[in-house]
Amino acid sequence: MSTTADRARGPRADRDRQPKQDRSRATRQRLLEAAVACLAEHGWAGSTVAVVAERAGVSRGAAQHHFPTREDLFTAAVEYVAEERSSALRDLFPDGVRGDRRAVVTALVDLYTGPLFRAALQLWVAASNEEQLRGRVTELEARVGRETHRIAVDLLRADESRPGVRETVQGLLDMARGLGLANVLTDDTARRERVVAQWAALVEASLG
Amino acid sequence: MSTTADRARGPRADRDRQPKQDRSRATRQRLLEAAVACLAEHGWAGSTVAVVAERAGVSRGAAQHHFPTREDLFTAAVEYVAEERSSALRDLFPDGVRGDRRAVVTALVDLYTGPLFRAALQLWVAASNEEQLRGRVTELEARVGRETHRIAVDLLRADESRPGVRETVQGLLDMARGLGLANVLTDDTARRERVVAQWAALVEASLG
Repeated sequence: MSTTADRARGPRADRDRQPKQDRSRATRQRLLEAAVACLAEHGWAGSTVAVVAERAGVSRGAAQHHFPTREDLFTAAVEYVAEERSSALRDLFPDGVRGDRRAVVTALVDLYTGPLFRAALQLWVAASNEEQLRGRVTELEARVGRETHRIAVDLLRADESRPGVRETVQGLLDMARGLGLANVLTDDTARRERVVAQWAALVEASLG
Repeated sequence: MSTTADRARGPRADRDRQPKQDRSRATRQRLLEAAVACLAEHGWAGSTVAVVAERAGVSRGAAQHHFPTREDLFTAAVEYVAEERSSALRDLFPDGVRGDRRAVVTALVDLYTGPLFRAALQLWVAASNEEQLRGRVTELEARVGRETHRIAVDLLRADESRPGVRETVQGLLDMARGLGLANVLTDDTARRERVVAQWAALVEASLG
């Protein structure tokens, strides 16, 4: 799976420096992945830069070089994993829906179950109580939300120039978020599959 | 608005004891309302029995008489407010939908915005990280969820014997929960109203 860093990297103008840059990038990535896992498992209160550095097998100094503050680390982590998920989702359906909207709806809902959603939820709730997190998390959430909406419209081949279509897709993603929340305390898989089947049919009928 | 305590109280067999019982009930209610407000504003970490007692103007001893542990207080609080909301919702539509499903959908979604949802969200997220809260919150959540579903089916006059109808209503409540989450960090009212209008129409078409 290609990362944002891969895509942004230019031609290897200076091959001598590459190994060091690679190491640094690998360290950053290990920290981001450890941060999401830590946030999902222990919540905001239990997630510090030191805990994440230890989990990632990185020195505290190196962690602080990459991410000077706890807020830097955790907002970057949720954004990084959301980007990885978005590209994975696009890769799943390289040619769009091709008549199977239900598979797309299922894959969209899958974005909201699992560790990334859990981590993001911990961050949202912490941000609702902590002023210094709030602005950054709100901005991050808006960016990730816009990108998810764009992917959903593409994959569902939804024509947003038709009245109501934009809101149909938005409501579907709101439902997916609600299903994610219902899955936080218990395994809601069986119920979720039935709801997704029915709502996929409603979306199909509405999008035509 | 009648409370669960009102409904459970029998005839006044012992009038002499009533004033003391009334005072005790009023104290309990003040504590529960203060607990929800505190949880919504400060989160689980900032919500202790002492903080709630002070907010309610009740002594710590009296608070601990009613609720021996923090878990007792906060699960009782979320349940109490959820019950108050449910009866308020039923009172809003004493004769059911009468052809206006959109008003019912709007009122159902309103259950998931505001302080009760914020408080419940804080409790769910705390429960996902704290083993001693988890069982109680999971049980509470299941009970409140079943009751909300029952009310939604009644008010929408949904015929659950028809295939897909149960899942349509469940998905609608999942969407409401997702809309609630989208409203935690920012005021999402304008977008939410458009989504609700569109999905009320889709649900109307689906329920027939």
